[in-house]
Amino acid sequence: MNVLIVHAHPEPRSFNAALTKTAVETLSSRGYHVEVSDLYAMGWSPALSPDEFADLGEGDYFNPAKAQEIAYASERVCGDVVREQAKVRDADLLIFQFPIWWFSMPAILKGWVDRVLSRGFAYASGRKYDKGMFRGKRALLSLTTGTASSLYQPNGIDGDLNHILWPIHNGVLAYTGFTVLPPFAAWMPAQVSAEQREDYLSAYKQHLDGLDELTPLFFHPREDYDDNQQLKPGVVAQSGVQWNPSAGQSFAQSAESNKRR
Amino acid sequence: MNVLIVHAHPEPRSFNAALTKTAVETLSSRGYHVEVSDLYAMGWSPALSPDEFADLGEGDYFNPAKAQEIAYASERVCGDVVREQAKVRDADLLIFQFPIWWFSMPAILKGWVDRVLSRGFAYASGRKYDKGMFRGKRALLSLTTGTASSLYQPNGIDGDLNHILWPIHNGVLAYTGFTVLPPFAAWMPAQVSAEQREDYLSAYKQHLDGLDELTPLFFHPREDYDDNQQLKPGVVAQSGVQWNPSAGQSFAQSAESNKRR
Repeated sequence: MNVLIVHAHPEPRSFNAALTKTAVETLSSRGYHVEVSDLYAMGWSPALSPDEFADLGEGDYFNPAKAQEIAYASERVCGDVVREQAKVRDADLLIFQFPIWWFSMPAILKGWVDRVLSRGFAYASGRKYDKGMFRGKRALLSLTTGTASSLYQPNGIDGDLNHILWPIHNGVLAYTGFTVLPPFAAWMPAQVSAEQREDYLSAYKQHLDGLDELTPLFFHPREDYDDNQQLKPGVVAQSGVQWNPSAGQSFAQSAESNKRR
Repeated sequence: MNVLIVHAHPEPRSFNAALTKTAVETLSSRGYHVEVSDLYAMGWSPALSPDEFADLGEGDYFNPAKAQEIAYASERVCGDVVREQAKVRDADLLIFQFPIWWFSMPAILKGWVDRVLSRGFAYASGRKYDKGMFRGKRALLSLTTGTASSLYQPNGIDGDLNHILWPIHNGVLAYTGFTVLPPFAAWMPAQVSAEQREDYLSAYKQHLDGLDELTPLFFHPREDYDDNQQLKPGVVAQSGVQWNPSAGQSFAQSAESNKRR
């Protein structure tokens, strides 16, 4: 099995680095081949821009998705992206290792997603979700936070961690066909004791050792949706974020009362 | 009133650019002073990195939030960030104009958030949400999508737009104290007719002309939370994303059944 860890922390001695080191050791010792893309060390350029498509010669209106598709089809993808795409193609398991910054990924990692998971390579017309390009591959988020886990509960002030991660879990990983494994979170490693940090590393090792036993996150299969890509009547929303507006759920009612306020 | 539009699209003739132009014209004609930070045109550097704190001389372990706090307190913030922070300080209304890429902001805009909304300037110990630094200012997202609005409904395959935007609405804007106005979405402008695009521009103008009548998004006030920053018993979750695990809501049940699968 090949593993790609995309690592996004600027400090080489950060706890994120310790987590990546743990992953490399744990997975290597099981005989897996592990590749690490250390984005800060690589000097990864985050902004998807016309510069990388300079030789496409398709006029001067820049449509990012279209430019990606043409570049990919004509094998004119720029070097740094080509190398990352090769790593993704080879990987059976993709891990994003990052600190939560502003309820999301650091910009450098978002820029890896924007540029590497290009149209043509990572998705295309009719190739998303169930029919995604990366079907058969698995993916996993490993992250650190600046605050306690109590804030990331359904009733916590920051909101349920799974909600916060929905744009990545569903919008990046499930969208491109990955089977999404439950995330690993190390809660505010900068604030806890050295012992607690060791416990986090052990827990992460355990998470990875038990990879094959983890139940993937649930996303509705294509057949649960109608032609408008909405859940069919009678299908009970189970994704954790979607819901059935007609079902009179308290959650939907909350959203309604929200609108009224 | 001062307005800052942070604009994040690489193509100057994009529909995002048309929306920003509409905003500039609409708000200027009301006598507002409008400033635009056109991130691609500015060559904005997205990655928060040790480089910009090179003269801090505080040892070589890079703690991003701490470095930001020290740089801000000692007036050693680097030039491009200083200029953006001044614009935010002067602004009564902040608008992010961007295409949804991977259920989120383009990396260049995420990098504006990571670097400009620094610890010290945009938040600090005890200064978040209700007590946020930017209390009294308003903020608004204006975005374009690649797919139809039906996909962004509560039962749509991409999930409710408000869920997708929660990390930005709650995690960036409400977190730093902004009053968050309802977003404006132009659905797949690249796929619709020229007439529909004109309608979008008119609708955006109307959205901005009616700014003062828009009902802000609801976020629970601090007093709804206990010392663990969780909703107090008896407080019904109304944020649209948070919920009360004990209330037996179908939504919570869905999340449970998700875990069991």
